[in-house]
Amino acid sequence: LKEPDTQKTYKVAVDAMGGDHAPHVTVEGSVLAAREFGIPVILVGDEDRIRRELLRHEVENLPLEIKHTSEVVEMDETPTTAIKKKRDSSLRVAFELVRDRKAHAVVSAGNSGAAIAAALFVLRRLKGVERPAINTVIPSLNGAVSLIDAGANPTCKPYYLVQFAIMGSVYMQEVMRIDKPRVGLLSNGEEESKGIDLTREANELLKRSSLNYIGYVEGRDIYKGGVDVVVCDGFVGNIILKTSEGVFEVLGQVLKEEISKSYLSKLGYLLSKKSFSNFKKKFDYSEYGGAPLLGVDGTVIISHGRSSSTAIKNAVRIASELVERDVTRHFLEHMEKNEDLFRVGKKPSIFQKIFGTGS
Amino acid sequence: LKEPDTQKTYKVAVDAMGGDHAPHVTVEGSVLAAREFGIPVILVGDEDRIRRELLRHEVENLPLEIKHTSEVVEMDETPTTAIKKKRDSSLRVAFELVRDRKAHAVVSAGNSGAAIAAALFVLRRLKGVERPAINTVIPSLNGAVSLIDAGANPTCKPYYLVQFAIMGSVYMQEVMRIDKPRVGLLSNGEEESKGIDLTREANELLKRSSLNYIGYVEGRDIYKGGVDVVVCDGFVGNIILKTSEGVFEVLGQVLKEEISKSYLSKLGYLLSKKSFSNFKKKFDYSEYGGAPLLGVDGTVIISHGRSSSTAIKNAVRIASELVERDVTRHFLEHMEKNEDLFRVGKKPSIFQKIFGTGS
Repeated sequence: LKEPDTQKTYKVAVDAMGGDHAPHVTVEGSVLAAREFGIPVILVGDEDRIRRELLRHEVENLPLEIKHTSEVVEMDETPTTAIKKKRDSSLRVAFELVRDRKAHAVVSAGNSGAAIAAALFVLRRLKGVERPAINTVIPSLNGAVSLIDAGANPTCKPYYLVQFAIMGSVYMQEVMRIDKPRVGLLSNGEEESKGIDLTREANELLKRSSLNYIGYVEGRDIYKGGVDVVVCDGFVGNIILKTSEGVFEVLGQVLKEEISKSYLSKLGYLLSKKSFSNFKKKFDYSEYGGAPLLGVDGTVIISHGRSSSTAIKNAVRIASELVERDVTRHFLEHMEKNEDLFRVGKKPSIFQKIFGTGS
Repeated sequence: LKEPDTQKTYKVAVDAMGGDHAPHVTVEGSVLAAREFGIPVILVGDEDRIRRELLRHEVENLPLEIKHTSEVVEMDETPTTAIKKKRDSSLRVAFELVRDRKAHAVVSAGNSGAAIAAALFVLRRLKGVERPAINTVIPSLNGAVSLIDAGANPTCKPYYLVQFAIMGSVYMQEVMRIDKPRVGLLSNGEEESKGIDLTREANELLKRSSLNYIGYVEGRDIYKGGVDVVVCDGFVGNIILKTSEGVFEVLGQVLKEEISKSYLSKLGYLLSKKSFSNFKKKFDYSEYGGAPLLGVDGTVIISHGRSSSTAIKNAVRIASELVERDVTRHFLEHMEKNEDLFRVGKKPSIFQKIFGTGS
């Protein structure tokens, strides 16, 4: 058994009961993260079931703990109700461990609406952040692109998009080590005359920001490179992700069908097999683990309900990296630099109404 | 030279100067359509240049005419200005031929904003239609899916989406011969609680329509089948098309790079070549020609600026089919059936304001 080179000190709480294949893949992914990266993991959930899963693995000396909980939030439950009522659910308790400083980050592949609700309700928003957003890292021709918001906020105001831009930019800089990330605003054309009211107002605000803003980008730019952070509302972000998923799946299936039509093709496929698996790996979402929910007071990774153990392992790794690089503190700094932009579009407070804007 | 089996009687006007590779591909595509399908084509544009292109082909006995024009709308011109000022442009004149009943349909691969402007300005909207929309047919696992609006209307009201749904449904029924097309509204999840204000209101209206409405669909459903017409606003529609284009291009490029890395892979590729070309053909947009602009008083096909001659040929074929199947008349019938839905959200007229809704 390979011992990790260094033992990390930041603990990650994993919602062991969350996801379509829980606790099987969540426990396996946590074991892999503890073994390969030396990351301490607190497995939150039904102790008996977690112990049974652990029996499948060599876990001696691995930094793993169990925090027992008696309830589970189901995938189709109403988010806020589930979080409020199921006080001893693995999902809620995992977030509470972060709030109570018993863990440094949390990973959940469970009901994503409930995870967002738990983040808002238990951890609360970072000071100055109006709406936390999901930041999904997408594989592109030249590395990786951050798509933010990937689904948390279907309806947005222009200055929300500015905040998303800042959060995505800090993420690419601190986690993906990209210097001065190029930030683009997703639109239906590159010319300034394109777009809708939302993007046109956000475009004006972004031009005045301290970011490396390159203007409007189009759907094809996401995968072709030339931009590091693609900003959009959560409605569009969700549709982009799901559409891309659909294209990948269908292309894989059609290619397979075509190839299996003749012996010659099949032989050819066997010879190029290595290429196909490299190709698949390059565009495998699970390599990227999960997507961080940025803008809350704590490190939160939301993984796909259908996550594999590799995805969970990578989600734990990313969670640990985010803590290590102190991404939350960087957010706060950048937010302060662009503070004036956040005021735009907000309703004036009662004091401002009475005493004017100088309050 | 193969003679067409039957000579069609409906004439199609082709904007011969429109598109990145005009008049080369527009003339070639028109020649192919006339030869293979017997469709009479009026080539609109600079007579000398068109004649020079025609010299490259065997055109004796083919039903081709030329309508000379002296101006060209460039790809980056402001649409409405170009249409108003360049009265003798190939684009405008091609639309006028339809208005004056000298042609039955028009195909343009030129400035698409200008083509939409020409359609509205020269042909005008169908009675009852608030906003014409681009209907793009997308290849899916089980045939073809209509995506409407694919870009004409970035900002929409709920009842526009209902009109798009009707137009897309009639199109799939009359042109693609699909019985009772399943209509889905694009959203960020299938549950009714998902969506944004626009989709929630449109969802309520669509439930009351005479269409085969199946509710919300997600991005992945576009390519996976299970739905025949996917309705969205033109901002989202444009982003979906461009994102898909990006995924296709990037996957093709990455696969090629991977394969060329080793001799074995290359040999393998040669053996499976037939599969790849079948595969490519299945997802080749040019097989579908162009996208009709539905809801105007005339048959209009808008092709991609980078169209090949095959795409132009298929655009002419689709234009001719739309006329033959009298799609415009079918629209009007369905519009009347769902007339009450169109009133919702419209401003009341001055008469309604004064005399109540009974006017």
